[in-house]
Amino acid sequence: MSGNSFGNIFKITTWGESHGKALGVVVDGCPAGLKISNKDIQLELDRRKPGQSKYTTQRKESDKVEILSGIFNGTTTGTPISMLIPNADAISKSYENFKDIYRPGHADLSYDEKYGIRDYRGGGRSSNRETVGRVAAGAIAKKILKTMKIKTFGFVSQIGNLKCEKIDVNYIEKNPLRIPDKSKLKDMGDLIDKVRKQGDSIGGIIEVRSLGVPAGLGSPVFEKFDARLASAIMGIGGVRGFEIGLGFSIGSMRGSEVNDIMVGKSKGKVKFNSNNAGGILGGITNGNDVVLRFALKPTSSISQIQKSINSKGKVKNLQVKGRHDPCLCPRAVPIAEAMVNLVLLDCILENKLTTLKKII
Amino acid sequence: MSGNSFGNIFKITTWGESHGKALGVVVDGCPAGLKISNKDIQLELDRRKPGQSKYTTQRKESDKVEILSGIFNGTTTGTPISMLIPNADAISKSYENFKDIYRPGHADLSYDEKYGIRDYRGGGRSSNRETVGRVAAGAIAKKILKTMKIKTFGFVSQIGNLKCEKIDVNYIEKNPLRIPDKSKLKDMGDLIDKVRKQGDSIGGIIEVRSLGVPAGLGSPVFEKFDARLASAIMGIGGVRGFEIGLGFSIGSMRGSEVNDIMVGKSKGKVKFNSNNAGGILGGITNGNDVVLRFALKPTSSISQIQKSINSKGKVKNLQVKGRHDPCLCPRAVPIAEAMVNLVLLDCILENKLTTLKKII
Amino acid sequence: MSGNSFGNIFKITTWGESHGKALGVVVDGCPAGLKISNKDIQLELDRRKPGQSKYTTQRKESDKVEILSGIFNGTTTGTPISMLIPNADAISKSYENFKDIYRPGHADLSYDEKYGIRDYRGGGRSSNRETVGRVAAGAIAKKILKTMKIKTFGFVSQIGNLKCEKIDVNYIEKNPLRIPDKSKLKDMGDLIDKVRKQGDSIGGIIEVRSLGVPAGLGSPVFEKFDARLASAIMGIGGVRGFEIGLGFSIGSMRGSEVNDIMVGKSKGKVKFNSNNAGGILGGITNGNDVVLRFALKPTSSISQIQKSINSKGKVKNLQVKGRHDPCLCPRAVPIAEAMVNLVLLDCILENKLTTLKKII
Amino acid sequence: MSGNSFGNIFKITTWGESHGKALGVVVDGCPAGLKISNKDIQLELDRRKPGQSKYTTQRKESDKVEILSGIFNGTTTGTPISMLIPNADAISKSYENFKDIYRPGHADLSYDEKYGIRDYRGGGRSSNRETVGRVAAGAIAKKILKTMKIKTFGFVSQIGNLKCEKIDVNYIEKNPLRIPDKSKLKDMGDLIDKVRKQGDSIGGIIEVRSLGVPAGLGSPVFEKFDARLASAIMGIGGVRGFEIGLGFSIGSMRGSEVNDIMVGKSKGKVKFNSNNAGGILGGITNGNDVVLRFALKPTSSISQIQKSINSKGKVKNLQVKGRHDPCLCPRAVPIAEAMVNLVLLDCILENKLTTLKKII
Repeated sequence: MSGNSFGNIFKITTWGESHGKALGVVVDGCPAGLKISNKDIQLELDRRKPGQSKYTTQRKESDKVEILSGIFNGTTTGTPISMLIPNADAISKSYENFKDIYRPGHADLSYDEKYGIRDYRGGGRSSNRETVGRVAAGAIAKKILKTMKIKTFGFVSQIGNLKCEKIDVNYIEKNPLRIPDKSKLKDMGDLIDKVRKQGDSIGGIIEVRSLGVPAGLGSPVFEKFDARLASAIMGIGGVRGFEIGLGFSIGSMRGSEVNDIMVGKSKGKVKFNSNNAGGILGGITNGNDVVLRFALKPTSSISQIQKSINSKGKVKNLQVKGRHDPCLCPRAVPIAEAMVNLVLLDCILENKLTTLKKII
Repeated sequence: MSGNSFGNIFKITTWGESHGKALGVVVDGCPAGLKISNKDIQLELDRRKPGQSKYTTQRKESDKVEILSGIFNGTTTGTPISMLIPNADAISKSYENFKDIYRPGHADLSYDEKYGIRDYRGGGRSSNRETVGRVAAGAIAKKILKTMKIKTFGFVSQIGNLKCEKIDVNYIEKNPLRIPDKSKLKDMGDLIDKVRKQGDSIGGIIEVRSLGVPAGLGSPVFEKFDARLASAIMGIGGVRGFEIGLGFSIGSMRGSEVNDIMVGKSKGKVKFNSNNAGGILGGITNGNDVVLRFALKPTSSISQIQKSINSKGKVKNLQVKGRHDPCLCPRAVPIAEAMVNLVLLDCILENKLTTLKKII
Repeated sequence: MSGNSFGNIFKITTWGESHGKALGVVVDGCPAGLKISNKDIQLELDRRKPGQSKYTTQRKESDKVEILSGIFNGTTTGTPISMLIPNADAISKSYENFKDIYRPGHADLSYDEKYGIRDYRGGGRSSNRETVGRVAAGAIAKKILKTMKIKTFGFVSQIGNLKCEKIDVNYIEKNPLRIPDKSKLKDMGDLIDKVRKQGDSIGGIIEVRSLGVPAGLGSPVFEKFDARLASAIMGIGGVRGFEIGLGFSIGSMRGSEVNDIMVGKSKGKVKFNSNNAGGILGGITNGNDVVLRFALKPTSSISQIQKSINSKGKVKNLQVKGRHDPCLCPRAVPIAEAMVNLVLLDCILENKLTTLKKII
Repeated sequence: MSGNSFGNIFKITTWGESHGKALGVVVDGCPAGLKISNKDIQLELDRRKPGQSKYTTQRKESDKVEILSGIFNGTTTGTPISMLIPNADAISKSYENFKDIYRPGHADLSYDEKYGIRDYRGGGRSSNRETVGRVAAGAIAKKILKTMKIKTFGFVSQIGNLKCEKIDVNYIEKNPLRIPDKSKLKDMGDLIDKVRKQGDSIGGIIEVRSLGVPAGLGSPVFEKFDARLASAIMGIGGVRGFEIGLGFSIGSMRGSEVNDIMVGKSKGKVKFNSNNAGGILGGITNGNDVVLRFALKPTSSISQIQKSINSKGKVKNLQVKGRHDPCLCPRAVPIAEAMVNLVLLDCILENKLTTLKKII
C-alpha cells in the first residue's frame, strides 16, 4: 500500500529520511540458520556510500550498520532482522533557503501534493539515502544466493553519449565509474568533470546480469520475473527506462531473428544458441543468464540557476547548493544489484512451493 | 505470491487457460454505487478480441462477458464482481503434434521447469487469452476514471522499422493497426502482410498516455507510480522494454536539458514548460500527462520451420501451426490501457488516505 | 482489504450472492501435480448442502461444482483453479416484502451503512451460501493434507443447553446433527424440532480437532497459528466465540495446573502428559493435536413476528419467511473443517521456507 | 507471511527480542498531518511497562521510546514512522542454566521445531516484550481515533475464580490490577500474592470496549470486524479464548432472545434495545459499542520445580528463575487496547473507499 515494503516472502521494509536521525530496514522472512556478520552487510554499504571518489557527492557518511535484532550468535533466527544506519553528516542548513521552492526534477512538488507536508531537508524520504536500507537487506539476500552459486553484477555501460564497447568483468570494481571498459575511463571521467564544473549533471545507462539463475523463477501473469525486476528497478530514484534481453531494439525485429533456439540439454539444463530473451520466457526464467538494462536520468540537483515556483505558484530563481553526485550511475550499481538479488531470492523461495512433489 | 492478482485496493484475480472451458476475473474492492452494464465491459473486450481484421489471429471468439456477481440492479454493491468469458473456438488438435516440443520464444520450457506439468493446448495459462480478464476488469476501472475526467489511450507508434511521425488521436481507433498517423497505414499494413506471408512475425512499439491525472498518485519508495506502471506493462506477454517520459534517451542528456521547469500555477495546478519526466517526479504524479512507451516482441509463433528440442532434450523440427497474430501490437493497445487504468484507479483510491484531513 | 480472499500462499477468493446466478471461488497457489476430481470437491459440498435432513433449511440446491480452470487431465497445473456452483433454487420473492426493513440479527443494516446499497435477496453476499466456495477450496486442501496424514474433523458438542458427554468419532457423520454422542441424538433432535415449531432457533457449540499436525506451524507474532484459526473461524457467519485448548476455563486456573509437561521424545516427536494448550505453544504448533471450539448463535431468521425498523428509521412489524436452518450447527461442521484445513495447508507451505537448510 | 506485520493500510511491523539491543516497530501508512510527540507514545508505553507494582515483573525497563523517522516538526509526514525502545535491564545469565531445556508452556520447543535455532535469552522473540512495539504503534492509532471521538478501554474482569461484579470505568486506571470493581481489589490482590509466594501463577479474563464506533467497519467475508479483532487478540501471547457480545453463552440461547431489536433512528444512528451482538452484525459494525472478552492463561514461568525435557528428549528437573508477572492480566490491558485501536483505525481507513460517492 504505502509502498515502503518489498517482497512477498523475503520481505523488507525501509524507513528514514536524508536528514533524520537514522535510516534503516526491517527484513522479515529471512530463513533461520544463515551465518551473517556486520562485515557482510558493510561490504555492500561501502560500495554504495557517498564520497568514494571525486565523481560522487562529497557528503561524508561512514554508513556503519548496526544490527539490532534477528541474529543470535552470528546466525539468523528466522525473526525480523532490524538494521540501522545513522545519519552523521547531514547539513540541513543548505536546504533552508529553498524550503518553500519546488526544485525542478525533484519530488518536492509531488510530495506536497500527496501529503500536504514535506521534510525538505535533503529531500527527506525521496533522497537516494533511503537506498541504504535496500543495500543492507540485499547483502543478506546476496549471501544466501551465493550458497546457491547465483551471482549478480552490474556495470555502467553508458554515460552521456559515451558507450562502453567491451566488457571486462574484472575491471568493473577496480574503477570509480564502475565501467567494464578501461579504454573509456578517461573520456567518461572527463565528461563527468566537465558537466560538474558547468554546474550540470549527466545521465547514463546501467546493465545488470545474473549468472547461475535456475529455470522456473517468476509467476505466469502479474508477477512475471521481468515484471518484478521492472518494478524493482523502476523503484530506484531517477530511473526512466527498463529493458530485458534485446529490449527496445526488439520492436524492429522479426520472430525468426528473435526466437532463441534450444539446441540440447546438458546436466538437466537446456542449452540455447542465443539469449535474446534475457533469460526469461513467458515471465519465467529459462536457465539462461538474466540480462537487464536501465536508463538513469542526470541528477536533478544542479548548481546552475534555474527558474522555478514556490508553493504559492510564484516564480523564483533557484540555485541548488548542497553536495550532489554529478552522475548517479556509479553508485546506482550496488543499489540495482541489491534489488535484483531481492527479487531473485524471493522468487527462489516461492519456487519451493510450486509442485506437490516439492512440498510433501 | 502466485501472481494471478493485481492491485492493492481495486484488486483483480484472473483465471483460465487458452483452451479451457472459460476464462475470467474476480474484481474485489470495487466501490459500491457504480452504474455498470455488460455493454460497458463488452466494448473493451471487443477492442481486444481476435479476428478484428486480417492483421490479427483468425480464431473466432465473440468473447461475450457474463457477469455472475457483485452487481445488483445495474449497480455495483461493493462485493466481488465475477466475470466469465467462454472459450468457444479452441482448436486443441493443432497442439497435439508438438505437445512435447518446446516452442521457441514460448513459455513451454519455463512452465515445465516450474510446474513439472503444462496445459499445452494453445499455451494454456501463458496464452494472450488470459488478458480478457484484465480488459474486463479494466473496463470497470475506466468507467470510474471517466467520472473523474481521467482518460487513457494508447496507440502503436512503431512496427518494425516504420515509425509514426504525427499523432492524430482521432485516427487511432479508425484503423485496424491502431496507429495515429494515417500516412503510415499502407506501409505498415504491407509490412505485416509481408512477414505473415513469409511465415514470420514483426515487433513494435506502443505508447500510452493518460490525461487529467491528478498530482499525488503513487508512493515514495517501492510503489512509485512508474514502478507500478512498469510492473503492469511488463506483465503483458511479449513486452521487453518499458520507459516513461524521455525514457532511454535520457541516458545521454544533461540535467539542465532534462529538468521540467515549473512556470506557474493555475486553478491549483502547477504548469510546466515541458514534460520530460512523463508526468512523474520522485515516483509520484505531478499533474502533467503520464506518458509511457513499451516494446513488444514479434509473435513467437511463426509458421517457418524452426529447430527445437523436446522435453528429453532431443532436437526436433517444429512448425507451429495454429492461428496467430503476425504482429501483437494492435490488440495490445486495449490491454495496456486496461493495465494503466487499473494502476491509476488503485493509486487514486490509496491517495484518499494519505492525510489526516482527508480521513477525518 | 475487501476481505474476500483468505490465505497467504494457498490463497482463495470467493465471490457470489445467495440469489445471484452462481457462487464460486478461485484458488491460487495450489501446487501442481495434485490429482483431483469433481468428486473430491463434491463430497465436501454435499456435506454442506442444504436439505440434508429435516433439521436444515429446505432450499433445494444440488450444489454441483463446475471446475473451469487450473486442472488438466485430472491434475492441478499450478495455475488458478476456478470453481463455480450455480444457484438453482433461489426464491427471491420472499424477500421483496421486507427489502427495506432491517432484519434483526442480520447484516442488512450494517451493509447499508457500509455500502449504501444491498442485494437484499436472501441476504446477498452475507448469506451462508457464500461458504460453498470455502468448502470447495477446503476440499482441495484436505486432499493435500491427506497425503501428509493430517486429518481434521469437527462435531457439534452442544445444542442449546444439551451437551454431548462422550465422543464417538465414528458416529459423527452417521447422524444428521453431526454429534459424537448417540445418547443425545433424540433430545437434541427434539429440541431443534421444538424451537422450529415455535418459529424460533437455537445456538450451539462446535469442536474441531486436527490430528497428525506437525510441530512448527504458525508464526511468532501476528500470525500465530491460533490467531489464524481464530480469524478463520470467526469469519464464519454467526460465530460469537472461539477458544483453543482449555479455552476460557483457563482464566480461573494456575500455571502449575495448566502447563503441559513434556515427558520424552519418540521418533523425533515430543510427548506431553496433557494437551491443555490445544497443540499450540507461543503461537506455533507443538505436535499435539490441535483442539478448538466455537460458539454459534441461533439463526437470526425466525418466523416469529419481530419489531424492527426500515431504512428511514420507522418501526415495522416483520415476519421473516423463507427457508432457514433452525440450528446452524450441523452444516457449520464441514465449513469449519474447510477453514481449518485452509489454515493448516497455508502454514505447512510457509513452513517449507523457515530455515536455510530447507531451501538450499 | 512471516507474521511480523499487522494491518492492511495502517500497517505495523515489529522487531526485536527480549534480550537483544532494542525492540521496535515501523508504522507504515500513517496519514500525514497528525501532531504527535514522544509523550503521546510514552504515556501508553508507561501503562505497559514492567515494574509498575508488586503484581508485575520486577524487571526494570524505562521503555523510553525514540522516534527515528516519519515525523517532522512534530507532525507526521506520511512516510514510515520508525520507533525504537532499548533493552536496558536484560539479565541473560538466568537463562543460561536451562538454555537447552524446553520450559513447559513456553515457545521453546515450538521455535526449535520451526527454526532449528532459538534465542533462549528471555524467550527471545516470543517474549511479551515484543508488544512494546504494538503499544507504541497503537498510541498513534489512538491519537487519530481520538479526533474521531472513538474511545477504547479495557479492564480485568476476572482473576482466577474471582469475578468483578460492577464496572466503574473511572476506577480502572486507579488500581494496579486494572479492575473496574473496587470491592474486589483486596481479594484479587491477595490471590495474586498467594500464588506468587507459592511459586505459581494465575489466569484471568479481560474485557475491552470501544465507544463511538461508526457503523460500517469490517468486511463481509474473511475480514469480518470480529474476525480481525479475534486475530488481533489471539495474537497476544497467552490468550486462549476470544468472544464478542454474548460470546460462548450464546450457544445455549434462542434467536428470539438473542436478536437485538432496532427501535428507531436518531441523528442518523440506529438505536437498539440491547447489544447482544457486541456491536457487530454480519461482520460489520452496527454503531453499537464493540464489546469483546478474552481469556489469558496463567504465566507459564513458575518458580516451582517442574519436569521437562531437553532438546535430546532427556527428562530434566527445571526451575524457571527470572522475573515474571504472576498474573499477566493487568499489563495485558494496554496491549489489547492497542491491538483493538489498530484494527479500528485500519477498518476506518478502508471504509473511506467503499462507495463511489466517497471517492469522487
